Amino acid sequence: MQKFSVSPDGEKFLLPTEEEGLKEREEVLRITEEQRKLGREIVAVQGMGFVGCVMAAVVADSENEKGEPWYFVHGQQRASVRSYWKVHKINRGIPPVKSSDAEVDRIFKSTVSQKKTFRATFRNEAFEVADVVVVDIQLDATKPAFGEAEKGFCDLAAFRDGIRNLGKHIQPHCLVLVETTVPPGTCERVVKPIMEEEFTRRGMDIEKNPPLIAHSYERVMPGARYVSSIRDFWRVYSGVNAESKRRAKEFLSRVIDVKNFPLTELEDTNASEMAKVMENSYRATNIALTLEWARFAEKIGVDIFKVRNAIRKRKGTHDNLLRPSLGVGGYCLTKDPVLANWSMQSLFGIDDMLDMAIEAVNINDTMPLHTIELIQEVIPDLKDVKITVLGVSYLEELGDTRHSPSATLVKFLNEAWAVVKAHDPYVDFWPEMENVPLYTDLKVALKDAEVVIFAVGHKVYKDLQPKEILSMTGTKPLIVDCSDFISDTKIRQYLGLGCAFRGVGKGAK
Amino acid sequence: MQKFSVSPDGEKFLLPTEEEGLKEREEVLRITEEQRKLGREIVAVQGMGFVGCVMAAVVADSENEKGEPWYFVHGQQRASVRSYWKVHKINRGIPPVKSSDAEVDRIFKSTVSQKKTFRATFRNEAFEVADVVVVDIQLDATKPAFGEAEKGFCDLAAFRDGIRNLGKHIQPHCLVLVETTVPPGTCERVVKPIMEEEFTRRGMDIEKNPPLIAHSYERVMPGARYVSSIRDFWRVYSGVNAESKRRAKEFLSRVIDVKNFPLTELEDTNASEMAKVMENSYRATNIALTLEWARFAEKIGVDIFKVRNAIRKRKGTHDNLLRPSLGVGGYCLTKDPVLANWSMQSLFGIDDMLDMAIEAVNINDTMPLHTIELIQEVIPDLKDVKITVLGVSYLEELGDTRHSPSATLVKFLNEAWAVVKAHDPYVDFWPEMENVPLYTDLKVALKDAEVVIFAVGHKVYKDLQPKEILSMTGTKPLIVDCSDFISDTKIRQYLGLGCAFRGVGKGAK
Repeated sequence: MQKFSVSPDGEKFLLPTEEEGLKEREEVLRITEEQRKLGREIVAVQGMGFVGCVMAAVVADSENEKGEPWYFVHGQQRASVRSYWKVHKINRGIPPVKSSDAEVDRIFKSTVSQKKTFRATFRNEAFEVADVVVVDIQLDATKPAFGEAEKGFCDLAAFRDGIRNLGKHIQPHCLVLVETTVPPGTCERVVKPIMEEEFTRRGMDIEKNPPLIAHSYERVMPGARYVSSIRDFWRVYSGVNAESKRRAKEFLSRVIDVKNFPLTELEDTNASEMAKVMENSYRATNIALTLEWARFAEKIGVDIFKVRNAIRKRKGTHDNLLRPSLGVGGYCLTKDPVLANWSMQSLFGIDDMLDMAIEAVNINDTMPLHTIELIQEVIPDLKDVKITVLGVSYLEELGDTRHSPSATLVKFLNEAWAVVKAHDPYVDFWPEMENVPLYTDLKVALKDAEVVIFAVGHKVYKDLQPKEILSMTGTKPLIVDCSDFISDTKIRQYLGLGCAFRGVGKGAK
Repeated sequence: MQKFSVSPDGEKFLLPTEEEGLKEREEVLRITEEQRKLGREIVAVQGMGFVGCVMAAVVADSENEKGEPWYFVHGQQRASVRSYWKVHKINRGIPPVKSSDAEVDRIFKSTVSQKKTFRATFRNEAFEVADVVVVDIQLDATKPAFGEAEKGFCDLAAFRDGIRNLGKHIQPHCLVLVETTVPPGTCERVVKPIMEEEFTRRGMDIEKNPPLIAHSYERVMPGARYVSSIRDFWRVYSGVNAESKRRAKEFLSRVIDVKNFPLTELEDTNASEMAKVMENSYRATNIALTLEWARFAEKIGVDIFKVRNAIRKRKGTHDNLLRPSLGVGGYCLTKDPVLANWSMQSLFGIDDMLDMAIEAVNINDTMPLHTIELIQEVIPDLKDVKITVLGVSYLEELGDTRHSPSATLVKFLNEAWAVVKAHDPYVDFWPEMENVPLYTDLKVALKDAEVVIFAVGHKVYKDLQPKEILSMTGTKPLIVDCSDFISDTKIRQYLGLGCAFRGVGKGAK
C-alpha cells in the first residue's frame, strides 16, 4: 500500500521509496561537499516544526562580515505521513508554516531559492555531515485530568529516540544544540547518557571525545515579528562542558543579533533549561492571579482592565501584570510548569512540588468555565441556547489553535446542551474540535445567536459595530466580552439596543 | 498623675493641659486667619505617621507658578502618650521619622522654619478650618494564626473613630482625601455613611452638601528617595462623586509632579482602593513563586539569582520578577492581600476567596523557616548552637523593623533552643523582639558564632571579607546567605577557609 503525506493545502506526496532514499543520500553528500568547498560549515536542524523551520532559515540567512553565508543548513524532517510534505514545500522555497509575518516568506525564498544555503531532507546523512545539529523536536506535557496539572507528566520516548538517532550518526566534533523546551535536567540526565552510550557503541572514546551538548532556548513569538523574535532577541545558553559552551557561543553569535541582544551564559544546562520553564511559569502565575481579582472586580462594579492600566504605569516593577481573559492557550504557558514539576519529581527524585506554578496552570486551564458562569447569570439553563463563539485561535491575529481556551469553552457549552457555532477568520479547520461548526463567514456564524462571545481579540471583532452585530444575529443577544475587547461606548450602545452585557473583569453593565 | 510622651531620643513631653489646649486652639485659629490673608488654602493632614508627616511637608512645600505656597498645612496628631512628642519635634523643624534621604531634613526645615507653611497641632480646629483633609491614619490587618492569612481580618474601629471625628468638625466644602491603604469599598461603605450621619446630626442637608470624599494612594518607598517617592511618582485617584474627583484632581495637580507623572483617574473609589491592594498582591505573589523555584534550584545545584537575571533581560514582560530571600516584611505586601480578601468577604459579603494572593502571603510569612531548614542540613540539632543574625530591618539600608522576617527567623531559632544574637547598624532598639540581644558592634555580635546568617543586604554586610568575619567569630562558622549577598568568589574563599556554606536559591556549595 502506498502512503501519502498531505499538505494543509491538499497536495499529496508519496513517501519516498528505498531507491529515492539512496538517490537523496547522494544528493545530501554531493551538496555538502560543494558547500564545504565554498568554506561553509554544515548545520542540521532536527525537526521542521513551528520553531525549527524558521530557525533553520535564520541560520541559513546568517552572514559573516564580508556578506558570505556562515552555514549551509540541512533541514531534517523524517519521512512521516504527518510531516513529509514539508520537505517538498521547503525545497520549493515555501515555508511550511502560515504566518502574518512577511519576512517568513522572504527568508525561505531567499535562503532556499536564491542563496541556496537551506535545503530540506529526510535523510540521516544530514546529521552525519553536520558540524552543528540544532534540536527542535517537539516535546509535550501530558495532563491526564482537567484541572489537575499536578498529575501531569512528560513522555520523553520520542525525544529520546531523536537523540539516540543523533548519537548513531553525528561525528564526535559535532555540537548538539538543544532548543526544545525540555524539563530541567534533560541535557545532563537524558541527552548526555544516550549520546555517550551510542558513541561508546560506535567504538569512540568518550573520555577523549566527550559529546558536545548545549542548550539554548528561543523565545519565539508567533505573529507579525515571527522571524525577528528568533533572530533579534536575548538568548540564554549553557553547555555540558567548557567546549560545548564555547561552541554554542560561537554559533549563536553568528546567527543571533548579539550586538543588540547580548547572550547570557549560565553555569550549566540545568540552569538554562530552568530559566525557560521558570520564565513561562512566571507568566502563567501572573495571569492566574488576575482571574480571582477579575471575579472580585466584576462583583463590585469595577473594571479590572482600567485598574490594571493604572498599576502598569510603574515601569520595571509592575508593568508585567497580565490580563484576565477567556483562558490561557498555546504551547508554552500551559505545559512548561508541568515539565518543571515533573522534572523535579521524576528526573531528580525530589519530594516537593511547584505549588504556585501548578496551581496557576489549573486556574488557567479551567478559566473558560468562568465565562460560562457569567453567561449563566443571565441565562441559567443553556439547553438549546444558540451561542456563537468569535475566535478559536489562542492568540489574536493568529490561526494557531493549539490548547486554545475556546476549545474548553465550546466543550463545556456543548455539555450544557447549548447549540454552539464558532467563527475565526484565521482558522479554516479546527483540528482539536472537528465536530464544531466553524465558519469563516460572520453572517452565517452569527445568524440567530442568543449569546455572542467575544473570545479572541482579532481586530476584525474589535472593529465590529453593535448595529452590525444585531443586523447579523437578527436577535438581541447577550454580549459576552472575554478580555476588554469592547469599549465603554459600545457597551452603552449594546445596552441601548436592548442587549444584556457581561464582561470578564467587568461584570454586568 | 502626669502623663508623658517620650520621643525616640528620650525627650519627655507632658501631655497638654486643658488650659494649654485652649491656648493652642487660639493659635490654630490665629495662624489660619493670617494664612488666609496671604491667599493660601488650608490643608489638614490627619496622622503624623510614616507617610502623613512627609506628605504634609510635601503639601506645605508646593508652590504656584509665581513661587507662592499654595497651602498652609496643619499636621494633626492626637495628644497621645505614643505620639504627642511628634507635635513638638515637627514644630522645631525636625522630622519625626528617621531616614537616609537628606531631603527629609531639608523639607521639614524649609516648610516649618523658613516658609512657615507647616505646623503641627493636636487640636481638632485644624479640621474645622481646613479646605482639604488628607487622611493618613494607620490601618492594619490582623493575622491571628501564623501561616493562615485566610483567617486574617481588618479592625476598622480606630479608622472609623478618626473619620467620625472629621465628620464632627469639617466644613461641608472640605474635601476628605483618604490616602491610607484601605480595604476596597471603604470610602463608599465606611467613610461616606459616617460622614453623612455626622453631617445630618449637625443639621446639614446632605442632599445639598454631599460629603466630598476621594481616595488616592501614595507609593512611598522608604530609603534614599523617600520624599521624591511621594511627590514625583504616579498617582491613582477617584472620588465618591464628580465634585470630589474634581477637587482631588486639583489638589493632587498642585502637590504632585503631574507633568512627569500624570495622574490616573479611575471610575470610583472602589477601583482606586482595589488598584493599591492588587498592586501589592501582585508583588507578594511574584515573590512567593520564587521560593518554590529557589528550593528546586538549591537541590539541583543551580543559582536561582543568575537564572532570574537571565529572565529579567526581557524588559516589560519579565523584568518585574522578584527574588527569593529570608522572607517578606514591611507594612504593605504582608497585609494588603489580607485587606482585599477581608473586604471581599466582609464589606461586600461575597462568598469567594483570593486564593493566589492569600496563598502568597502564607508562603511569604513562613519563608524564614526555609532558611532554618538550610541550616539544619548542616547542623540538625540547633540546641545551644550560637547563631548570629546580620540584619533585623525589613529592607536594606533602612532601620524599619515592622513585620521583619528576621523576627520570625529568630523566634523559631529560639524555639529550637539556639543561642541567637542579632546585629543591625540601623537599629538601636528592636521593639518587636525586645528580649533578643541586639548589638551595633559587629565584633561583639559575631564573637564565637557557629552560624552566621546574612539576613539583610545592608552594604556593610556585603562589603565584609571572609577573613574579617572569621577573625571576629574566632570559629569556622556555617555561612548562610539569604538572598545572593555573597559573591561566588567570596563563597570559594569561605570554603577555602574551612567554612560550610548554604544559600537560599543556591543550596550547598
